[in-house]
Amino acid sequence: MTDRKNLPASARVPARALEAFIKRALLAARLPDAGAARVAELMTRADLIGADNHGVFRLPQYVERIHKGGMNVNPSIRVVRESAGMTLVDGDNGMGHLVMDFATRAAMDKAAHSGVAWVGVRNSNHAGPAALYAAMPLERDMIGLYIAVGNANHMAPWGGTELLLSTNPIAVAVPALEEPPIVLDMATSVAAYGKVKGAAQRGETMPTDWMIDRQGRPLTDPQRAGEGSLLPIGGPKGYGLALVFSLLAGVLNGAAVGRDTIDFNADQVSPTNTGHLIVAISIAAFADVTGFKRSVDRVIRDLHASPTLPGVVAVRVPGERSHRIRVEREREGVPLHGALIARLDALAESLGVAGVLAAS
Amino acid sequence: MTDRKNLPASARVPARALEAFIKRALLAARLPDAGAARVAELMTRADLIGADNHGVFRLPQYVERIHKGGMNVNPSIRVVRESAGMTLVDGDNGMGHLVMDFATRAAMDKAAHSGVAWVGVRNSNHAGPAALYAAMPLERDMIGLYIAVGNANHMAPWGGTELLLSTNPIAVAVPALEEPPIVLDMATSVAAYGKVKGAAQRGETMPTDWMIDRQGRPLTDPQRAGEGSLLPIGGPKGYGLALVFSLLAGVLNGAAVGRDTIDFNADQVSPTNTGHLIVAISIAAFADVTGFKRSVDRVIRDLHASPTLPGVVAVRVPGERSHRIRVEREREGVPLHGALIARLDALAESLGVAGVLAAS
Repeated sequence: MTDRKNLPASARVPARALEAFIKRALLAARLPDAGAARVAELMTRADLIGADNHGVFRLPQYVERIHKGGMNVNPSIRVVRESAGMTLVDGDNGMGHLVMDFATRAAMDKAAHSGVAWVGVRNSNHAGPAALYAAMPLERDMIGLYIAVGNANHMAPWGGTELLLSTNPIAVAVPALEEPPIVLDMATSVAAYGKVKGAAQRGETMPTDWMIDRQGRPLTDPQRAGEGSLLPIGGPKGYGLALVFSLLAGVLNGAAVGRDTIDFNADQVSPTNTGHLIVAISIAAFADVTGFKRSVDRVIRDLHASPTLPGVVAVRVPGERSHRIRVEREREGVPLHGALIARLDALAESLGVAGVLAAS
Repeated sequence: MTDRKNLPASARVPARALEAFIKRALLAARLPDAGAARVAELMTRADLIGADNHGVFRLPQYVERIHKGGMNVNPSIRVVRESAGMTLVDGDNGMGHLVMDFATRAAMDKAAHSGVAWVGVRNSNHAGPAALYAAMPLERDMIGLYIAVGNANHMAPWGGTELLLSTNPIAVAVPALEEPPIVLDMATSVAAYGKVKGAAQRGETMPTDWMIDRQGRPLTDPQRAGEGSLLPIGGPKGYGLALVFSLLAGVLNGAAVGRDTIDFNADQVSPTNTGHLIVAISIAAFADVTGFKRSVDRVIRDLHASPTLPGVVAVRVPGERSHRIRVEREREGVPLHGALIARLDALAESLGVAGVLAAS
């Protein structure tokens, strides 16, 4: 444990400085320049949208995996199968961000011609928050739909106790005209495992619906999380979603699921063979683009204007919070707490590069 | 209310007899022969798989809508937009079963060439259980994914009180080799509205997580369901799913959502402009079909063999229960309770056709 007295104070780091830091760390870890730049951009974007467990927070873990040979810094990311409506991509064990960047571009390029394109991915790695990839097609007036197999199994099937499932997430991004886009990004469990770790760090107890122990009793002590299972949303429904997502994003692509899942926290060496899928849907193939976006505006405004439960200020739509955070962080910088700065400075020192707070 | 003393006893009706009954009723309601036959087949299949609220139970309502001019018995179901990876179908206000049958065939035919095909639908109607359409591609070694906008709004957005959302369902069907296929079919609410109506009919109270009233308190009296909202699975997550499903299956296709939704129980005249989407995914485009199915078998067997919580006999997979019901009902007939038989006999009399229990 880090001694709290010696921690640097928390700080706001401008996005540009954060991105430069991530890039120099990845270059020092021997990623090629273009790859380091793109991963740095995407990881910074994760921090900008408030996905604090999926941005620079992951950098030490990524670098450790690279150093131990568990991730390929010079992958040959390639199309292994292709048809008019689909593509199957092999990530060659490269960083997930680069693999998913490739896959999402492939999906958008194909959807520009085919209307809809479904791209499956295998031999990838952790790629940060799901919303990153679902939201990329927005810039081309497309809807994005992303599903992934998670990189550790923290969830038992409904009625079971063996952790055979990850909290496989889904993200869907839909553009609006004057309103910010709708961006849903959710795990199929009530709480993501990162929230459990957060509660443990803060010494808090968990709500009773987050986890159960092997007797099916609520498990509220996050220090005992290893003895239990996350609960799926809606009981058997969330279990069903997590299961079919593992088939669609995993088995169909030849990626690892179930007992073959490599826990990327416990094992830094074995290739994870992570599976994802991204679907790009060109709005122009279905409808007038402006008319569609105007209809989405109307849906959003109807929701915003609708009456609320006592104590609720306003109905929100998915993506609203992360949009607000992004606007604020682009202006004020990304907040990093002291413990994270200390870890990043230790990483910088080990790599022989300037730390995250250095003027860039 | 029907007088319980005069009810016919419940009975098992052979699937073939049930299908013949539905067909003669639909013919009497002036559906053309081919259409009546196909709807009868699909409605019977709904009863066979245990979707008791979505099979012959709906027949009186469908016939009433046809008689009142709310549904088109001679629709010109047609492709309005098409590209290599997608099709947009206009159902011309025909019966939802016929529209979705057309759309699913279109998806499978296109996926046979394009690998994956996404078909959006507008101007359709209630089409029975989601699983019907998701499961059709199984016969062609394809995965099916179906999403629909529901035909009545029983759910408020998270934090709100206005019923702006339906419990928009999703179904996904994935073939296995020796095991029955995995077929997930779920609403995005904790309980489907049919379960609320069932509890009301039986005079039961509801669990506290099914509905809330306009103050956000648990609503457990199903007679008061009109005063409250169904709860989405996982709180804001299920709300988010229901919302993006309404955009994907509704707004994108030019179908009704939100305040434009026609409650098909309250209004038998106005076209519902129901939206659906079906995606067919050809396994051969991604992988060796037998190898894929063997992997799905393995996933199922790992789940079945995994340890259970106290009191749980075995972990189940989605679709297992409906598969068992189908095998049993194909052998023993479809059970119809007395009140339903009485309603169907009254319908038969009004249409001048033989009742459901008549020898066919």
